[in-house]
Amino acid sequence: MLSSLLTTSWLIVLGVVVLALVYVAFNYFRIKKMPEGTPDMIELSGIIRSGAQTFLKTEYKSIIVVVAVVAVIFTLFVEKTSGITFLMGAMMSSIVCVLGMQSATYANVRTSNKARESLSIGETVKVALCGGSISGLAVQGFGMLGFLAVLLCFGGVQHDASSQGFVQVGLTCNPYIMRISTYSLGCSIVAMFNRVAGGNYTKAADISSDILGKLRHDLPEDDSRIPNTIADFIGDNVNDIAGNCSDLLESFVATMSASIMIAVTLFQTHGGKVADSTFNATILFPVILAGCGLVGCLIGLGLANIKKMGDNPSRELDLSTWISAGCTIIFGGVACYFIFKDVPLYEDWKFGWVSPWVSSVMGIIAGIAIGIITEYYTSTDHKPTQKLAEMCTEGEAFVVTKGDAVGSRSVLLPVFVIIVALIVSGVICGSYGIAISALGMLAFVGATVSIDAFGPIADNAGGLAEACHLDPDVRKITDKLDAVGNTTAAIGKGFAIGSAAFATVSLIMAYVGNYTEIGQPLSLNFASFFVVAGGILGGALVEYFCAILTDNTIDAAKIMADVGDKQMTQEVLDGKAKPDYNMMIAMAAKEAIHRMVLPSVLALLIPIIGGFILGVEFVGGILVGATIVAIPRAIFMGNSGGAFDNAKKYIEQGMLEGHGKGSPAHKASVTGDTIGDTRKDVVGVALDIFIKLMSTVSNTIAPIIKNFRIFG
Amino acid sequence: MLSSLLTTSWLIVLGVVVLALVYVAFNYFRIKKMPEGTPDMIELSGIIRSGAQTFLKTEYKSIIVVVAVVAVIFTLFVEKTSGITFLMGAMMSSIVCVLGMQSATYANVRTSNKARESLSIGETVKVALCGGSISGLAVQGFGMLGFLAVLLCFGGVQHDASSQGFVQVGLTCNPYIMRISTYSLGCSIVAMFNRVAGGNYTKAADISSDILGKLRHDLPEDDSRIPNTIADFIGDNVNDIAGNCSDLLESFVATMSASIMIAVTLFQTHGGKVADSTFNATILFPVILAGCGLVGCLIGLGLANIKKMGDNPSRELDLSTWISAGCTIIFGGVACYFIFKDVPLYEDWKFGWVSPWVSSVMGIIAGIAIGIITEYYTSTDHKPTQKLAEMCTEGEAFVVTKGDAVGSRSVLLPVFVIIVALIVSGVICGSYGIAISALGMLAFVGATVSIDAFGPIADNAGGLAEACHLDPDVRKITDKLDAVGNTTAAIGKGFAIGSAAFATVSLIMAYVGNYTEIGQPLSLNFASFFVVAGGILGGALVEYFCAILTDNTIDAAKIMADVGDKQMTQEVLDGKAKPDYNMMIAMAAKEAIHRMVLPSVLALLIPIIGGFILGVEFVGGILVGATIVAIPRAIFMGNSGGAFDNAKKYIEQGMLEGHGKGSPAHKASVTGDTIGDTRKDVVGVALDIFIKLMSTVSNTIAPIIKNFRIFG
Repeated sequence: MLSSLLTTSWLIVLGVVVLALVYVAFNYFRIKKMPEGTPDMIELSGIIRSGAQTFLKTEYKSIIVVVAVVAVIFTLFVEKTSGITFLMGAMMSSIVCVLGMQSATYANVRTSNKARESLSIGETVKVALCGGSISGLAVQGFGMLGFLAVLLCFGGVQHDASSQGFVQVGLTCNPYIMRISTYSLGCSIVAMFNRVAGGNYTKAADISSDILGKLRHDLPEDDSRIPNTIADFIGDNVNDIAGNCSDLLESFVATMSASIMIAVTLFQTHGGKVADSTFNATILFPVILAGCGLVGCLIGLGLANIKKMGDNPSRELDLSTWISAGCTIIFGGVACYFIFKDVPLYEDWKFGWVSPWVSSVMGIIAGIAIGIITEYYTSTDHKPTQKLAEMCTEGEAFVVTKGDAVGSRSVLLPVFVIIVALIVSGVICGSYGIAISALGMLAFVGATVSIDAFGPIADNAGGLAEACHLDPDVRKITDKLDAVGNTTAAIGKGFAIGSAAFATVSLIMAYVGNYTEIGQPLSLNFASFFVVAGGILGGALVEYFCAILTDNTIDAAKIMADVGDKQMTQEVLDGKAKPDYNMMIAMAAKEAIHRMVLPSVLALLIPIIGGFILGVEFVGGILVGATIVAIPRAIFMGNSGGAFDNAKKYIEQGMLEGHGKGSPAHKASVTGDTIGDTRKDVVGVALDIFIKLMSTVSNTIAPIIKNFRIFG
Repeated sequence: MLSSLLTTSWLIVLGVVVLALVYVAFNYFRIKKMPEGTPDMIELSGIIRSGAQTFLKTEYKSIIVVVAVVAVIFTLFVEKTSGITFLMGAMMSSIVCVLGMQSATYANVRTSNKARESLSIGETVKVALCGGSISGLAVQGFGMLGFLAVLLCFGGVQHDASSQGFVQVGLTCNPYIMRISTYSLGCSIVAMFNRVAGGNYTKAADISSDILGKLRHDLPEDDSRIPNTIADFIGDNVNDIAGNCSDLLESFVATMSASIMIAVTLFQTHGGKVADSTFNATILFPVILAGCGLVGCLIGLGLANIKKMGDNPSRELDLSTWISAGCTIIFGGVACYFIFKDVPLYEDWKFGWVSPWVSSVMGIIAGIAIGIITEYYTSTDHKPTQKLAEMCTEGEAFVVTKGDAVGSRSVLLPVFVIIVALIVSGVICGSYGIAISALGMLAFVGATVSIDAFGPIADNAGGLAEACHLDPDVRKITDKLDAVGNTTAAIGKGFAIGSAAFATVSLIMAYVGNYTEIGQPLSLNFASFFVVAGGILGGALVEYFCAILTDNTIDAAKIMADVGDKQMTQEVLDGKAKPDYNMMIAMAAKEAIHRMVLPSVLALLIPIIGGFILGVEFVGGILVGATIVAIPRAIFMGNSGGAFDNAKKYIEQGMLEGHGKGSPAHKASVTGDTIGDTRKDVVGVALDIFIKLMSTVSNTIAPIIKNFRIFG
């Protein structure tokens, strides 16, 4: 039975979601209606769009098989309705992916055209941001739509139900929890495939272009005689838009799920001594907080759409973020007051009804702080990247070693922010506070993803301007947008890993709750050698995962370089014939997709196999170990890659005296950049999902495996 | 009161130790008496020896201050006698360091001379191994000597005593435990200083030589016109001998301590329901097992000294290891039978009195298996390094990326071995089994270090042969030894990290025991957000530590390159004047020593500060997090470095068709090698000690901080 308060509140949130999706549709058609520009621009953007679509179509042929198999297994053996909710998750993630990529491939060419027609930075920023906001609001809107559908269609959340699959194998579980966790798992699996395949696609194309251009034929970057360049272009959309959308959708949904699962656990560990009204309030608040965030994003992004923009894009983008975050904080506080003011609270909530709100604010502040720290370590305006650029004068070995040091050094501060937020939220509001803190960080994900998507749109717009030989003034505008986009991309990566860290911690707590018997204290004891062994294994698996992704990328790049090389006949090199771009586009997709299965399945199967053989606590150890290793590794990969990239830009902009473009120092910086490409765009971003997917799978299977254990 | 059985047994072991040390002295003087060869050889080896001595003298000026301050603090505030035991640990570590380095600098020149005089591989191997065995047996002998002195002078181990420092600040602890852990801490601190300073010294000298030779002046490697070359020579002794000796001494002592601390914890968690005879047996066995190992090493190394050696050095070295390991297993089994057959055993010892023995054998097998896996990933005979060499044809960025992948991939198997050994030992013999397993791995450390020390001695012997223009036939012999030495060095590094992982796990278990109240179950609960926060912080601290060491090395290298460059006047370059080697030697020492303090103090202070602010469980989290991150990172650093090094050798030996010395592929492989140098010789080897030192400090302060906590 669903209390009427819950139903009403969820329906109100559903209204907001529908409003947001209508706004998404409005922007989508508005962008689509804008003119595309010159015939060259129309042709090239058409190739990019159809290439991107081809990739997604090929990829989804594989994804559908895996998703269908998993859904059937869930329905048959786990819980009757969980297959459906799993499919809903997979579907939401896929919709967001397709919509995001489609809108970005519309927006990029229209952004360049707006720059061409208006020659105004402000007007151009508006188009790019409008394109980005389609992705952003879709991520938050569809993520919540599916979640609310799960809640509303299946009777909300009950703490004392039990169900089974169609085939009775003696496994019972709480169907309400199972539906939420399978919904989240559906989002996770699609995100994993997208990130792994997208990363491989874009970087194999990018690096193979570099091999052909710089090492084998001495051509400028992105020269149209290199057959791999168009695939490289497409890759930006595949990874930075589609991959990023499904990644953050997954984080967002996972934290909502974790909050609700922890609310159930809390109720159960208190052994029924808690009022139903308290339970309902803790179940309600996460969805309402996400709704408040969505309203905040609508306001922040809507204002950006209406107002006249100035010539400082970075200020305009920051403003949108600040407005969205500010509204989330204010509305969240009001909601918290009404939800918790009249219900009896848990005894460890230090500040009464304010406690969950303070936790959510901690998360928001932490997210923004991590973004600022990331900018410090990767932007050309600050010491770390400048010093890295200086090291380029001493040759390749020095650049790489210094880059490693910058990456490793950049880990401490973000982690410090994370643990301060963790501890403060935990002290004030217990494990519920930690989940809410994670959700707070992601509650305005719509705005974050919009700003994030701005980057690749601006990047592609610049590329189109270059490739279609538009006026240098146009290129100046897109360059300015691109520079801002680089910074927002770095910040976005920092934010993604920060939120993943938080999400995973709350998922692990939810996991412990899911396997603990009702009324028992939660325990994951590292004084047990099983758990320690799991922890060490989890850490090593992260390294292994990094190795697979890295090897896949350079192997694919080498193959693509060799095949591309054969096309670069004298005719092509003389400009008398065009290379076969489509062949390379298809090849990049094929290479990426057949390589995506192993790492994804690894993340899926490890907790299941580990759990059945050595038990739930062993799996708990694996999750902790994987998280503890993945957080610093992901930060390292993102920031060392970002610093390499910008050190190269620093030299190219002539800011290192006596060492310009073409100098040995520049050559060394290019080496660093290429190394960083795989790190930041393939490995770093996939690590987030690796730990989230493992945690989500574990949460799903926790009630099943808790009574099984072959060994020990 | 010390039971007479314990006293008698310990005295017997002491007899073995004295015998081993007499054998060390015998070998030392035997080596010293051998002829040094030509006047050139005498002069150059004299410079190396005095340079190495100068470094140690300068370094110890700093070490003594830190050690003295810590000893006074312990005596005043912690436990009256603990300052003395701390000093004993520091002293043993220092003796081994000085003795090892002194004997190695004697042995290297005599090894070349033996090759010159005898032109026999077998004879030459005997000299190098004899030199190495001085280090090896000293490590095990002095480590045990100090330990036995602590036990015998202060009345063994009691489980129910309590004491304080001279200044009573309300802190009480078990003085027996405190003495053992401070002894171990004394070893740790000296090891930390040695590894950090030694690594910096040797690599700053090495890399700055490379910058001057390869980048700035186009001279061959180790050319005598480069003023930094001699410092590079000395570095091998400073890091690979002195650093390695104190590193493994520390691991060995730490595992003995952990075994005994866990024995005490076991007794206490069973709340007095355990017979005194059982307690005594569990206290006795670790020392006896170490004694059995020492006898095994004496037999293995003694036989190598007596027998006539063939022309296959690798076979001869392996034979010594196998004999030592085999004897340890056999004698350990016999000892286990006599110690445990008649006493009541703990209920979780699945196989009765055999249980501890099986655990020790698990450790020995795991150690050897990790060595073999390390060889697979780093030797030119196998796929990973060969594939890395092939990637060199695609340029620097590819080599580095592929090297990263090889390093990350090489983590999984060793970790798998570690966790299998952990779980099996744990299941069979509980937490005591895990400590014994770690000790088993290190029980024949005398042989391992001897084989390890063989490498740098052979390396230096080859360098001397080259520098003193000896006959090419001599060089052929030393090259063969050097090649074998490279493999043993890689295996030694694998062994060091494997044993460090084991040692740390048992130290963490001992730590939890040290802070748990008597009769309570051991718990380190990762379902608590404090502990999770500690875990994440611990992981990040490892990354930060890596960053400091990396930055220190390249900063020092850059400074040394700039200073060295000024000396390379036209006169020096024309060979008309000699550069000032001594200035560079002194400079390398100065740079290394002033940079060693921060990282070392970091490891020392983090657990103390963390514990006082956020409590013992938070520190437990830090230790777990640091260990889980440090194990894969250390393996990564060692193996990627080793693979880079050997990929370069592979190309230099002409094994990559069409890409010999001087080709672009070779240049790329040199870049990889330089990057790998910092990884394997500075960062990787220091990580072991970082986690061991943190764990040892935590063990020492656990009884003190368990009742303090400012926050939370």
